[in-house]
Amino acid sequence: MKHTKTFIAAALATAVGSAAFADDVKVIGVSIPAATHGWAGGMNFHAKETVERLEEVYPGLDFVLATASDPGKQVNDIEDMVATRNIDALVVLPFESDPLTPPVQAVAQSGAWVTVVDRGLSVPGIEDLYVAGDNSGFGKVSGEYMVSKMPDGGDIVVFRGIPTTIDNERVDAFTAAIDGSGINVLDMEHGNWNRDDSFTVMQDFLSKYQNIDAVWASDDDMAIGVLAAIEAAGRSDVQFVLGGAGMKEMIKRTADGDPMMPANVTYPPSMIATAIELTAVGMTSNAPVSGSFVIGSVLVTPENAMDFYFPDSPF
Amino acid sequence: MKHTKTFIAAALATAVGSAAFADDVKVIGVSIPAATHGWAGGMNFHAKETVERLEEVYPGLDFVLATASDPGKQVNDIEDMVATRNIDALVVLPFESDPLTPPVQAVAQSGAWVTVVDRGLSVPGIEDLYVAGDNSGFGKVSGEYMVSKMPDGGDIVVFRGIPTTIDNERVDAFTAAIDGSGINVLDMEHGNWNRDDSFTVMQDFLSKYQNIDAVWASDDDMAIGVLAAIEAAGRSDVQFVLGGAGMKEMIKRTADGDPMMPANVTYPPSMIATAIELTAVGMTSNAPVSGSFVIGSVLVTPENAMDFYFPDSPF
Repeated sequence: MKHTKTFIAAALATAVGSAAFADDVKVIGVSIPAATHGWAGGMNFHAKETVERLEEVYPGLDFVLATASDPGKQVNDIEDMVATRNIDALVVLPFESDPLTPPVQAVAQSGAWVTVVDRGLSVPGIEDLYVAGDNSGFGKVSGEYMVSKMPDGGDIVVFRGIPTTIDNERVDAFTAAIDGSGINVLDMEHGNWNRDDSFTVMQDFLSKYQNIDAVWASDDDMAIGVLAAIEAAGRSDVQFVLGGAGMKEMIKRTADGDPMMPANVTYPPSMIATAIELTAVGMTSNAPVSGSFVIGSVLVTPENAMDFYFPDSPF
Repeated sequence: MKHTKTFIAAALATAVGSAAFADDVKVIGVSIPAATHGWAGGMNFHAKETVERLEEVYPGLDFVLATASDPGKQVNDIEDMVATRNIDALVVLPFESDPLTPPVQAVAQSGAWVTVVDRGLSVPGIEDLYVAGDNSGFGKVSGEYMVSKMPDGGDIVVFRGIPTTIDNERVDAFTAAIDGSGINVLDMEHGNWNRDDSFTVMQDFLSKYQNIDAVWASDDDMAIGVLAAIEAAGRSDVQFVLGGAGMKEMIKRTADGDPMMPANVTYPPSMIATAIELTAVGMTSNAPVSGSFVIGSVLVTPENAMDFYFPDSPF
């Protein structure tokens, strides 16, 4: 549909000069979970920033941004966008897959473009564009960093997230990346992407092992719990902790040269910005943007850390 | 590097108001094989169109577009872009993988952003962003269309391209998609993405088989050869031919309701436009655009064919 509309709009514009028509304006709805902190807070920040910026860049696009505190509210938001704004495209990061699948499917069936971000729907093939993080890449980049940082090997402990396919993909790729390097995984436990759980797990590790050279915390919330446990125990054997996801406080510590936080690995909440940008490109050009975009996980070091530091973001 | 530069530019702009600085302008180099016809011709058309449009959209970006008639010229183009224009980013569709790998690697090592399109380099991990077509998806969408068009099954012949992994991925996915459908593949031969080869192969098929219900030509050049052979033989048993890649003459026939060409499957040369757009997004925003974007193959039918018809393009 989109190109047909573009041709018609172009024909109209030619006929009457450069006057702007109400029909020219396409509406992109953005529906995301609300949040004031953490990864989702960062996602909200980048969504708002992108919508504000793109309204300047593209005079022919209009945006509706709705944030929902539960799946029911998100379903209502999307139905409202269709009923009252007649959206041409929807960018959605689903709160949960199951309840959001029917309303998003209805949007797709109405002929509107659908971009799904991060969490998939329960039925495959509904979306035109899927934008997601790279969990295998996240584990691989993390493992390769550990190997480069510990060329002679060493003893580490590993923190896992909530048991999910996401967590399995990350840990499998990490394990493959350190294979044969001389790095020995003393122990591996689920910290559930949670500070308090990880504090407790790290306390256990510290009492169990006399020497731990480094920690793959694999997430910045877990890294905060790990660092607190190390400090509480007064242990000086742990040389560094590798977190992940790019929380701004941790990125700042890396930028400032904190030896305990020498690096980070991105899994950026700003992927919502990429999804909105690509949807806008699809609405305003002939460039094909259907398909699947896997956003790479990038190693953050003191040299490039400020590129990933967003002081105004909550994350 | 890009975000650091953005922050510096933003700080300068704040300090002195909205005056434009020479330092603000970032240069994106685009290096592609030259061509006046075929898929590469379409790619050239979309690259030029996109560069012209984006120079309007983004006042802070400047573009250098170079087209090369051989790999040696493309190497020189890229070295010139670095030496004389100090490019901040390179979008490259390599003529061949081997000769282009060292110069593109040098660009990446200089700190510039690298986007590689369609054909990979010989060394993995050089590029920040890889934009490519979806060969498995191409085969799957083609197979699913055949099944929907022949609900009671039937006898078909299949044309393969030049023996490559690309061709294998397409044919494997097609074969899986028609499995169990009652569609019987009488024969499968390499037409090498070539009209004349495909004409000859189809002549053989027509003399070998008394009844052929349909043809998966899998490419529009091969489809042209197949259609010519059917016409030359005066055969009326073949109900339709499914090509692919979206050549404009074939898209037009589908749009016009030609029963022999009821559909097409995209493998769009306009993916170069997507690559340039995404690179521009990376230069002008916080949206992460590193990673891998696989452009989906889409089914073209009479209903949506005009969305994929570019009358000014050579392809």
